[in-house]
Amino acid sequence: MNALTKPFRKQQAGSDAKRGKVYFVGSGCGDPELLTLKAHRLLQSADVILYDALVDDALHAYFPASAEAIYVGKRCFEHSMTQTEIDELILSKARKGLTVIRLKGGDPGIFARLAEETDRLELHDIPFAVVPGVTAASGCSAYSGIPLTHREYAQSVKFVTAYRQAGGLDIDWEHLANESGTLVFYMGLSKVALIAQQLMVHGMDRSKAIAVIDKGSLPGQQLLCSRLDDIERDLNSVTLTGPAMIIVGDVVGKRAEVSLELLVENDAEAGILCSLA
Amino acid sequence: MNALTKPFRKQQAGSDAKRGKVYFVGSGCGDPELLTLKAHRLLQSADVILYDALVDDALHAYFPASAEAIYVGKRCFEHSMTQTEIDELILSKARKGLTVIRLKGGDPGIFARLAEETDRLELHDIPFAVVPGVTAASGCSAYSGIPLTHREYAQSVKFVTAYRQAGGLDIDWEHLANESGTLVFYMGLSKVALIAQQLMVHGMDRSKAIAVIDKGSLPGQQLLCSRLDDIERDLNSVTLTGPAMIIVGDVVGKRAEVSLELLVENDAEAGILCSLA
Repeated sequence: MNALTKPFRKQQAGSDAKRGKVYFVGSGCGDPELLTLKAHRLLQSADVILYDALVDDALHAYFPASAEAIYVGKRCFEHSMTQTEIDELILSKARKGLTVIRLKGGDPGIFARLAEETDRLELHDIPFAVVPGVTAASGCSAYSGIPLTHREYAQSVKFVTAYRQAGGLDIDWEHLANESGTLVFYMGLSKVALIAQQLMVHGMDRSKAIAVIDKGSLPGQQLLCSRLDDIERDLNSVTLTGPAMIIVGDVVGKRAEVSLELLVENDAEAGILCSLA
Repeated sequence: MNALTKPFRKQQAGSDAKRGKVYFVGSGCGDPELLTLKAHRLLQSADVILYDALVDDALHAYFPASAEAIYVGKRCFEHSMTQTEIDELILSKARKGLTVIRLKGGDPGIFARLAEETDRLELHDIPFAVVPGVTAASGCSAYSGIPLTHREYAQSVKFVTAYRQAGGLDIDWEHLANESGTLVFYMGLSKVALIAQQLMVHGMDRSKAIAVIDKGSLPGQQLLCSRLDDIERDLNSVTLTGPAMIIVGDVVGKRAEVSLELLVENDAEAGILCSLA
């Protein structure tokens, strides 16, 4: 066995009556119906549900009344739990023998600080599993009609964020500007102009297409399509609120005329009807 | 309105009684419970379901008996429908006024030839919508315990395939070899050695971690973790069958000890218990 390999754990049933279990569950990226059947089933068995700011409020309808639901989110300018406090809370609930669901927006494996939370459980020998979810790029792609890849125009797609951010962004712009496939930025609205500027400064074609999808897959979704050299001006002419997803690449011009009414037919008031020119 | 923008279609109810509707639905990446609630609801309303080779057989249990299920998959060395025949079939069913579900493995926006199929429907004014799904990278990540991103080790993840493939792969290896984030290859087992070789030839560290996940999230899943310069040898010592997913990057070494038993508790026989050293 080499250093990269750890054996899959076989759970020792009954070895510790007070050892609960933890599920890291992706809730999908907005529309509560993007919950998977597995996530839905597991939620019904939960003793405790820890959810964050990326989990849409409408998902609460799927929480069983018997479960304790705890908000552990981080919102800008609001007091909230630190990562250490969240880790500690998960551990303490599991040690009481409870079934804990750590519900995260999107997919737990993508920009969700999964490893930090599982590291602590491994250390304390608490069994856990991960349930994948629909990541925001896939949700925004489907509900905006912009494919992430295209046989002719994009043979790859790259998801980018910048965790270790202090003031600027810790990103290799030169490498990104030479990307031939689709780029998807999991970042806030406040970064759109910076991203466009940095890509152009590092050599990306100024006419490259860029799209901003605001509140993707949620009621009130808005879509702005532009070019790198026009996006800052175009953003000033509209009101977006976030969360927002940014797509750069030729796929933006391949956007299909999706009929969003077909997806919200159970609730006509929740339609996603606004499109920006 | 600029050239990149097409307005969202507002469906003209009743304008054409014989105009059906088409849903491009992601089924998730293997485990049938990764179907979303939306996909599950829409399947129940289907008149026709067109499914391909990437849709696991176990999903058939979710097809309503009243729906016509048509296999349109492509498997190596088997006679199957061409893309044009599939496009034509979708169109002809929709023109009969039927509700058509085009069920695709994973997420329809990622390596699923979505735009080719929607282009034809746009041309003929057939309303359609896209339902996102759990892409294979997310599924394999969750069920193997390898996170796709990591606050310290990977601030991006890139999904790669090579569509315009004749003999070799149409890939910018130099750009890939300089990638600091995670690389995920949506390619077959037969490409593993080639990928490792090309990354090393173009300058990637020979000790970079690589994982092959075989039958990810399905019964019989197997995981092989190695290094670029050892993977070809290690592959020769095991029997994998595909479909396989390849992950390259430091996240492989951050694999968590997931308890897969927790995910398959409803069906103990379907466990995913095999791990390769």
